Amino acid sequence: MKNGIEKIADKISKDGYKNIFFIASGGSWVVSQTFEYYWKQHSSIPVFNEIAAEYVLSNNKQVTRDSIVILQSKSGDTTETVKAAQMLKEKNIRTIGIVRKGDSPLANSVTYPIVENVVNLDGSDPENVAMIFLLFRLLYNQNEFAQYDKLVKSLENLPQALVSVRKQADKFAEDFSNNFYQEEYQMWVGGGSLTGKTYSFAMCVLEEMLWIKTKSIHTAEFFHGSFEVLDEDTCCVLVKGEDVTRSIGERVEKFMEKIGSKKFSVIDTKDYKLEGIDDDFREIFGQMIVTGVVDRISVYLERDRDHSLDTRRYYRVMDY
Amino acid sequence: MKNGIEKIADKISKDGYKNIFFIASGGSWVVSQTFEYYWKQHSSIPVFNEIAAEYVLSNNKQVTRDSIVILQSKSGDTTETVKAAQMLKEKNIRTIGIVRKGDSPLANSVTYPIVENVVNLDGSDPENVAMIFLLFRLLYNQNEFAQYDKLVKSLENLPQALVSVRKQADKFAEDFSNNFYQEEYQMWVGGGSLTGKTYSFAMCVLEEMLWIKTKSIHTAEFFHGSFEVLDEDTCCVLVKGEDVTRSIGERVEKFMEKIGSKKFSVIDTKDYKLEGIDDDFREIFGQMIVTGVVDRISVYLERDRDHSLDTRRYYRVMDY
Repeated sequence: MKNGIEKIADKISKDGYKNIFFIASGGSWVVSQTFEYYWKQHSSIPVFNEIAAEYVLSNNKQVTRDSIVILQSKSGDTTETVKAAQMLKEKNIRTIGIVRKGDSPLANSVTYPIVENVVNLDGSDPENVAMIFLLFRLLYNQNEFAQYDKLVKSLENLPQALVSVRKQADKFAEDFSNNFYQEEYQMWVGGGSLTGKTYSFAMCVLEEMLWIKTKSIHTAEFFHGSFEVLDEDTCCVLVKGEDVTRSIGERVEKFMEKIGSKKFSVIDTKDYKLEGIDDDFREIFGQMIVTGVVDRISVYLERDRDHSLDTRRYYRVMDY
Repeated sequence: MKNGIEKIADKISKDGYKNIFFIASGGSWVVSQTFEYYWKQHSSIPVFNEIAAEYVLSNNKQVTRDSIVILQSKSGDTTETVKAAQMLKEKNIRTIGIVRKGDSPLANSVTYPIVENVVNLDGSDPENVAMIFLLFRLLYNQNEFAQYDKLVKSLENLPQALVSVRKQADKFAEDFSNNFYQEEYQMWVGGGSLTGKTYSFAMCVLEEMLWIKTKSIHTAEFFHGSFEVLDEDTCCVLVKGEDVTRSIGERVEKFMEKIGSKKFSVIDTKDYKLEGIDDDFREIFGQMIVTGVVDRISVYLERDRDHSLDTRRYYRVMDY
């Protein structure tokens, strides 16, 4: 995969581009947030993030023939994302499609399809590796990321590191579920590079798979309203990362301790060892640490709530 | 106010700029979303939106001496927003501060302070008028909005139109409260130019002032997870606008009818007359229509819940 993606990135760098877009839906959309966050702080090339359903109806003037658009869909058949790819094709705008199924409508509609092989969900097939190769190669090519070779080395060790994160998280996750599995409303607070991950776990797992009501809120926005619904008996979870915005999360933590919350938990990426990964990249892989922890939480919530993660009320059950 | 703002806009246009930023916190941050949405579809100049607390810790590479940064704070003393303004000043980056208090830290830290006179909250002192003069004058100057003079005429009629919206909404709002005032969890769904307004009413009023738990979710994201928590007895409110993304809201509405929800309500801007306002601008003023409707809802929720909108558990009650 690495060589293929590097070829794509090198071709794009050679041809040039003026901005970069992420366009997708739901979990596949928001997974880009962590990379958008990093990119904004390291690149002079603007990055944008658009929801596919909205993009196809709107006329975003920044999307031009000088743009690169990255579209993601695990199944490769998310309607709005495929439609966006087709519209972009008609406009002769370069697109990259990251999918898990090669022969899929999205892969067949983009300039550069990338098929990611994510089968095992125990960490041994890390998600987002294609995106990392792609984006950091682009940054490297434009002299905005000197450590590319070191990053590639770390990526080799990523599968075993992420399998280990799940093991390290297991007891915490079981305790978490034990304490909170009956909480039918949970506020999840996360910011910086973990804003998207916090949002997507709340929406795509707690809400979609477990039918638990949630509010996900940015750490910096927490104090601008949402915190007023909390009392000591309302469940609240802070997702704390290792980027420059860590202090905002710490403020949330201090507040929750001050009000004497009995139902407060912290997922801190700092608590988890990433063996074989250079410390410089912990910020980049923070989202994957959180994925490891919440994957274990999901498993125990599934057990303790006696509610299969595969049960849906509506999705692929009825037409809407 | 108009002439002063036009002078600022004309000076900025003359001096030139490469991108435009909105930086603020909470309600004052998210109020910009509706304008960001419009701008993206009409301007070739990129627009970005950053939370102040995050901006001051990060190093957003797009913020340069060629940027224009608009900061908003009603009180003019929101800590992180003031800090952002001061950092920008040190970097010699041009800033515009929109406040309601002239002699305030924010007004004193920006290149161009604008004091908005919003006293009456019955619609007769419309919010965001300064922002509208500013942004649409800039668009006009760069040949991206020909109707500026027509817009100015409509703005003259805006106060009476918005007072009227509140009258038109009154019965709906009383019924809404009557039906839903006991709902301790409400999902609010809104997209396009109303994404920010939906988010901010849920957070800054329902959560902060009324201690009602909410989830606010984008219409296009609704189907990617959140909708699975809904059954026929879970309260859900759709905010439906008149921009190009209206069909996404209609899909939510159809779905809610299909599942036979007994606790579903729609706030549709189309239901409200804006007397004296050119139809071309309904999209621009849609957010203000929603403000009118939800202002009335707040009043009845305050009465029916017997819970003053001024009561706080934490904000300005304790240090955090």
